[in-house]
Order: sequence, then structure tokens, then C-alpha cells
Amino acid sequence: MRISARNQIKGTVVDVKKGATTSHVRVDIGGGQIVTSSITNEAVDELGIKAKGHVTVVVKASDVMIAVD
Amino acid sequence: MRISARNQIKGTVVDVKKGATTSHVRVDIGGGQIVTSSITNEAVDELGIKAKGHVTVVVKASDVMIAVD
Amino acid sequence: MRISARNQIKGTVVDVKKGATTSHVRVDIGGGQIVTSSITNEAVDELGIKAKGHVTVVVKASDVMIAVD
Amino acid sequence: MRISARNQIKGTVVDVKKGATTSHVRVDIGGGQIVTSSITNEAVDELGIKAKGHVTVVVKASDVMIAVD
Amino acid sequence: MRISARNQIKGTVVDVKKGATTSHVRVDIGGGQIVTSSITNEAVDELGIKAKGHVTVVVKASDVMIAVD
Amino acid sequence: MRISARNQIKGTVVDVKKGATTSHVRVDIGGGQIVTSSITNEAVDELGIKAKGHVTVVVKASDVMIAVD
Repeated sequence: MRISARNQIKGTVVDVKKGATTSHVRVDIGGGQIVTSSITNEAVDELGIKAKGHVTVVVKASDVMIAVD
Repeated sequence: MRISARNQIKGTVVDVKKGATTSHVRVDIGGGQIVTSSITNEAVDELGIKAKGHVTVVVKASDVMIAVD
Repeated sequence: MRISARNQIKGTVVDVKKGATTSHVRVDIGGGQIVTSSITNEAVDELGIKAKGHVTVVVKASDVMIAVD
Repeated sequence: MRISARNQIKGTVVDVKKGATTSHVRVDIGGGQIVTSSITNEAVDELGIKAKGHVTVVVKASDVMIAVD
Repeated sequence: MRISARNQIKGTVVDVKKGATTSHVRVDIGGGQIVTSSITNEAVDELGIKAKGHVTVVVKASDVMIAVD
Repeated sequence: MRISARNQIKGTVVDVKKGATTSHVRVDIGGGQIVTSSITNEAVDELGIKAKGHVTVVVKASDVMIAVD
């Protein structure tokens, strides 16, 4: 499947923290940069997401903001 | 200002493409990775966003999905 | 690629309306229901999205609201 | 109230799963298609959302992605 | 229609700026505060949104960030 | 840091309700208007967000919908 979301960045799962319905997944995308994703527990289970797994972080361009100092 | 969004990644603006109301800003966040942001033209003007400028890409954790092959 | 987004609905492209940077893609998901997506022009070109094409509409659960009468 | 969100799809609640702050509501929109929504527990209580209830799934066009095989 | 989005704020339309596909609607919600919304041109036309009109700004809680100085 | 999000509204924290991974923060933005934000517990801790604290509510224009009666 190829998706319209402009941002697709490969990385390695650092850890998965499960809540009651929502999980936080932290992904090392290289260069010392960690990206945090908040997804459903079902998605974590269905995709078998766990530490050290290789994944792709996906973000729609309209969800990306820009900041300046 | 410090913001709750979990993902704040430094980079350099590659280019800015302005539409009628919406601009696409592409940012090199290193490691050959380009992130695309879709923001208002007003934001581009107000923050003076232009090629080669140093910026931070900001994404809320709840807007980040995870994919696996 | 399998993605964490909980909502993946198959359908057929009705039409694509391109703006300066943003396109509107309307998809017939059956049962007389049309879904509208707003994505970048680049995504439309890259994925070759056009009328009558078979696609999947993808929506993260946290972007879905519920209303009652 | 009429809302700008382009996607408003009628359906029947399949089930509601409450977390500590966030609930997952699954809605049958017909044609065998189930849509999952992640909303606050307060919203579930305030709107009286429960299994078998008739609801409308609401999604902004800018939150809808398109994928192709 | 009542909707799950936690944030519903009444206001008056200041102006509407139409792009090729996307419009920017600015709303005065009182106390000197202007809120900007980016919605489709179709929504503007369908709902008859224009300057001086009374509207409600609607935002899902998961789309609201918090910042501190 | 200055950010592209068009909507930045000052207010005072009313209360913070922590879930397993996600917190709900309610902010009084004046005029009797309360805004609810859903952010990660980590963000609440990192930014020291608590009742009576002065904060800014931040929302991207593309996440703001408009409704009419």
C-alpha cells in the first residue's frame, strides 16, 4: 500500500507504553532524533509493534507545523 | 514558548511553494530526510520562512501514525 | 505497508479537483456514501490518483468525531 | 447545527470501550464497514453514546488520506 | 446535531478568504480574540459562511496543544 | 519559539485530568469559555502544567471547523 501522506520516515522502535486505550510508541529515526506516536492499543497489537522493530513513521503534511526561534 | 507537542525536530528549509491560501514548506531534517509541512501563507509571511532558513518541525504525537512492511 | 490508522475503507475515485497546492479527491465508498479527502497535489501525481481509480480512504481514529441528532 | 466537515456518515454504534480519559467507539456504517473513533469519555457521557445507538461519524476532509495498492 | 468535539465557541465571522480549493475563515470569538479556520470552499458555500455571520468554531480536544512561556 | 499555528489563545488552567497515557487539560480563555486539550502525560509533566497556571492554547487552522445553526 502506498499512501498520500507526504512524510514517511523509517526508524526503530525504542519502546511502547500502553494505556487503557491509547499507546505511546517512541521511534528512533536516526541522528539522535526520537519521534513519539500516539495510536490505539489495537493498532499496536495488530501490527505487532514492539521494541527494536523496524517501522515507518507516517505524518500527513497538514499535521506538520513550523516554528522559528 | 515551550509547547506540548512531543515532536520537535530541527532542520533547514529546502523550499517554500505558495498556493492561493496554503503553502508547502519542505524541510531537510538531516540524514537525507525531507519533511513536508502544509501551513497558511500568512504563517509563512509572519515567520519569514524561506529557503535555507533554520526552523523546527513540530508535530503532535496524536498526528503520528506507525506503519510496518 | 500496513498502517496503524484504524479506518481503511475501499472505494472508487469519483473526481479530483486540483487547487494551487491542495487537491480535493472524492471517493465513492459504496452505499451512496461519498468521502472527501484533502491532500497535496504532489500526492495525487505521485500515486496517480484519478477518476474511476480504486483507492483506500485512510483515517486515524483520533480524527473521527461522533455526532448525534 | 450544520458543520463544515465534509464527511458525515450515518451508522450504528457497535460498541464503546472506555479508557482512563479516552474512549474508542466503533460504528457500523453499512456494507460491512466498521469505523473507529477515539473521543473523550466526557463526550461519550454527554452525548449518551452506547451500543445500538444511531450516530453520525464526522471527519474533516484534511484528515482523510488516500492510499493505493 | 450535537458533536463529540469538546470545543465549541460562538463567534462572528470577520472575513472569508477563498483559495483555489481551501478557504480561510477568521472568526471573532470575543475578548479581542480572532480564530482562523482552514476549510474547503464547498463548506463555505454550502453553509453560506460570510462576514458578520454568526458561527460556532469547533475543535476536537486532541487537536489542541498547550504552550507555556 | 514562534509557531506557524494561527490560533494561539492565552488562558488559565482550570484543571488537569490524567489518564494512563493521555491527559485532559481544561483552560479558561476568558468570556466564560473553557477549552479542552488532550495531550500526553509526558507533556503535562515536562511543561509543569497545573491548575491556575498561565498557558497558551495552540490550534492549527486546518484543525478548526465552522458550524452554523
